[in-house]
Amino acid sequence: MPPMLPDLDTLNTRLRDGATSRAQIIGQAAARAATPAAEAVFLHSTFEAAAQVARAADAASRAGKALHPLAGLPVSVKDLYDVAGETTRAASLVRKDAAPAAADATVVARLRAAGAALVGRTNMTEFAFSGVGINPHYGTPVNPASADGVARIPGGSSSGAAVSVALGLAVAALGSDTGGSIRIPAALCGITGFKPTTRRVPLTGAFPLSYTLDTACAMARTVSDCIAVDSVIADSAVIPRVTNPAATRLAIPRQVLLDDLDPTVARAVDRALGRLSAAGVQIEHVDLPELGELAGLNAQGGFSSAEAYAIHRHVLAARRDLYDPRVASRIDRGANISAADYIDLGRARLDWIARMEARLARFDAVVCPTVPMVAPEIAPLRTDDAQFFRVNALLLRNTSAFNFLDGCSVSMPCHAPDELPVGLMLSHGPMRDADLLGTALALEGIVQPSQRDD
Amino acid sequence: MPPMLPDLDTLNTRLRDGATSRAQIIGQAAARAATPAAEAVFLHSTFEAAAQVARAADAASRAGKALHPLAGLPVSVKDLYDVAGETTRAASLVRKDAAPAAADATVVARLRAAGAALVGRTNMTEFAFSGVGINPHYGTPVNPASADGVARIPGGSSSGAAVSVALGLAVAALGSDTGGSIRIPAALCGITGFKPTTRRVPLTGAFPLSYTLDTACAMARTVSDCIAVDSVIADSAVIPRVTNPAATRLAIPRQVLLDDLDPTVARAVDRALGRLSAAGVQIEHVDLPELGELAGLNAQGGFSSAEAYAIHRHVLAARRDLYDPRVASRIDRGANISAADYIDLGRARLDWIARMEARLARFDAVVCPTVPMVAPEIAPLRTDDAQFFRVNALLLRNTSAFNFLDGCSVSMPCHAPDELPVGLMLSHGPMRDADLLGTALALEGIVQPSQRDD
Repeated sequence: MPPMLPDLDTLNTRLRDGATSRAQIIGQAAARAATPAAEAVFLHSTFEAAAQVARAADAASRAGKALHPLAGLPVSVKDLYDVAGETTRAASLVRKDAAPAAADATVVARLRAAGAALVGRTNMTEFAFSGVGINPHYGTPVNPASADGVARIPGGSSSGAAVSVALGLAVAALGSDTGGSIRIPAALCGITGFKPTTRRVPLTGAFPLSYTLDTACAMARTVSDCIAVDSVIADSAVIPRVTNPAATRLAIPRQVLLDDLDPTVARAVDRALGRLSAAGVQIEHVDLPELGELAGLNAQGGFSSAEAYAIHRHVLAARRDLYDPRVASRIDRGANISAADYIDLGRARLDWIARMEARLARFDAVVCPTVPMVAPEIAPLRTDDAQFFRVNALLLRNTSAFNFLDGCSVSMPCHAPDELPVGLMLSHGPMRDADLLGTALALEGIVQPSQRDD
Repeated sequence: MPPMLPDLDTLNTRLRDGATSRAQIIGQAAARAATPAAEAVFLHSTFEAAAQVARAADAASRAGKALHPLAGLPVSVKDLYDVAGETTRAASLVRKDAAPAAADATVVARLRAAGAALVGRTNMTEFAFSGVGINPHYGTPVNPASADGVARIPGGSSSGAAVSVALGLAVAALGSDTGGSIRIPAALCGITGFKPTTRRVPLTGAFPLSYTLDTACAMARTVSDCIAVDSVIADSAVIPRVTNPAATRLAIPRQVLLDDLDPTVARAVDRALGRLSAAGVQIEHVDLPELGELAGLNAQGGFSSAEAYAIHRHVLAARRDLYDPRVASRIDRGANISAADYIDLGRARLDWIARMEARLARFDAVVCPTVPMVAPEIAPLRTDDAQFFRVNALLLRNTSAFNFLDGCSVSMPCHAPDELPVGLMLSHGPMRDADLLGTALALEGIVQPSQRDD
């Protein structure tokens, strides 16, 4: 496994014991960020400023001041969030020379107020519009799990975010999730990603992909660390309702979400479910026919295409040459959506959510693989459009169901140390975040006991 | 003036004194509803069922039970709300034979739970899509203020609702306001209408015109009675922050809202403002250039056309012959709105609201005439489309600004007894309902001292 940083509890214990300092942690992260493995992870790094923040936190700690667990520790920021004085490019060429942001995005300001040491702006799919993570302008961060010498995709759109955590360049990565952009790269890179209910977290100062679906959220090593970041960016502590595994009921859907699993994913998920059952978790196969409606409901491109087209249409018409053609083609789909179709989609979604909530009411979570495959190689996807779009659709299939649900969803690793990373996803409906996170905390250690080792 | 019922306080005092009974009040209302003046007010009346409710309330009261001030008193319901067992036609032919509603709309259920005696379904503009109140299918209720023998429009879309209160057929009328449909007929018929902030009141079981703008609300004799109904249908009591007139600051906009006033309106509003100033209210002329942007922002037809087209397009394609052609032509405008234009409108609105809120922050309310004219004659508007649409646009001009603001707004009478009714409108931004209603309560008696007489 790559040299991921210990979790926040462990780090803070070591800091209290004097075994390390925040400045030392930032220094080590900066050194790793300079290695070839970290190429293309940051579009712009700020380790020197982060080291200053770390030193100040170390001094405050020595002076006996109580600090937030994130204080002075390295946190990365996806390139779509405003950071005062920096240009928000959203990893595009079109915004390369945009004016620097006048103020921090709200979530960035909240992280800064908690004391986080911001180490830089992470690479991403241009405008966050794909789950693969390939960026033709700024390079593609290589998945740290590519141990066999084959360069594999990191997943996207929060590609650099995931790699920054998996490589030990940050304890947490601020990203965003519109159709899976936190959970997909978390799964493919072997870390944990939590998408809260959208409305809990503000988007002021975030460059938009979809006004309806965009969600500010983060990746980290563990569920507990994701909760720590979520509490900061939502400015409200979720108090997870931790459950007894033997009293936990999970729904595993008969439709769609288990289709076309590759063998590594099928094996890892089966093993995880077996462990959960052995621990007393009740896992019930359920009919969720609503999942079969999603492809039809979103046949025109859904909220993301309609809203991205509204956002980009004027610039796209003027400077199409600067766009990733694959992103442009997905934006273009929005041109053919009428207001009536878009309005109908919004109403159909409300009805769909109500039916799903009714079916899920008696469960603690839905369980399924986060993505049906392990990280594929980058090279063929760079050149083959058909394969790119096929892989992209499969990557987004499971995760996006819970964005459409307006729900909350967490991906946690469930692979063995000698396997490529596989994510197990637990999800629930709108505003069920406290229940979901409690369930995830209770089951995390069962799903992958070795994950807690360091 | 027509024989309006006394306000709720006066009625409940008389009931406590034994001067009248609820059954007697319903009986008198039923008798008035059978007169020619009430023609076309109800599409379906239920005075017998209401009399049963009234008798039960009288008995409960005699038995010493504490009752809601609305208990056993006549309340009318606009034809777009579901009432269990009745067909919701929204005053259309297309829905004439629709299946009866299985359940009450939420707001209807809440009124029933408070004990209100529902006296019938009131007439309206077909599908609530105009401010004039003419209905070619079910007739047009005549404005009770048409004392000169000339039949005048009631205003719409809640036409029958306003007349039911102005004629003393109901103490309160449940209606809806999308662009002014409560406040316009309240102003033209000489009663009070309050549109709360949209999100405060549920729309389950209401036939939609605009998902974005529709607001469930009511008309009554006084501000206080509107508050009583609002507390019931919102299931939360607004506690008005009553202010001292001398500490009250009103903004009167230099743009748009005072344009093209007819002489009666100009005179009545000037007189009301003069009385307010004399009472110490500070009235400041302010620049609200945002008001000048509204026509451009809504040039394609706005939310109502886009959303009404989404709602009606399939039925309209199949049965256009059954629609009021004027309503159909307004729905048709939505066909040419793209998803991107609709999405842009939603974003532009958020920006517009933020700018307006900033300008209004230091005021207790915006003051302006509810509509720039007194009720015009029905006859010429029946035949002349150009005049109809000109009048309709003028009727909606001032009121719809505060729907676009997502605000709250109240119209109260400010005319002299020998004048045609004129409404003075006080308005504020989203969720400022308690402030606005407090201001309205404090100023109501100053604006029209004679209004409290009976």
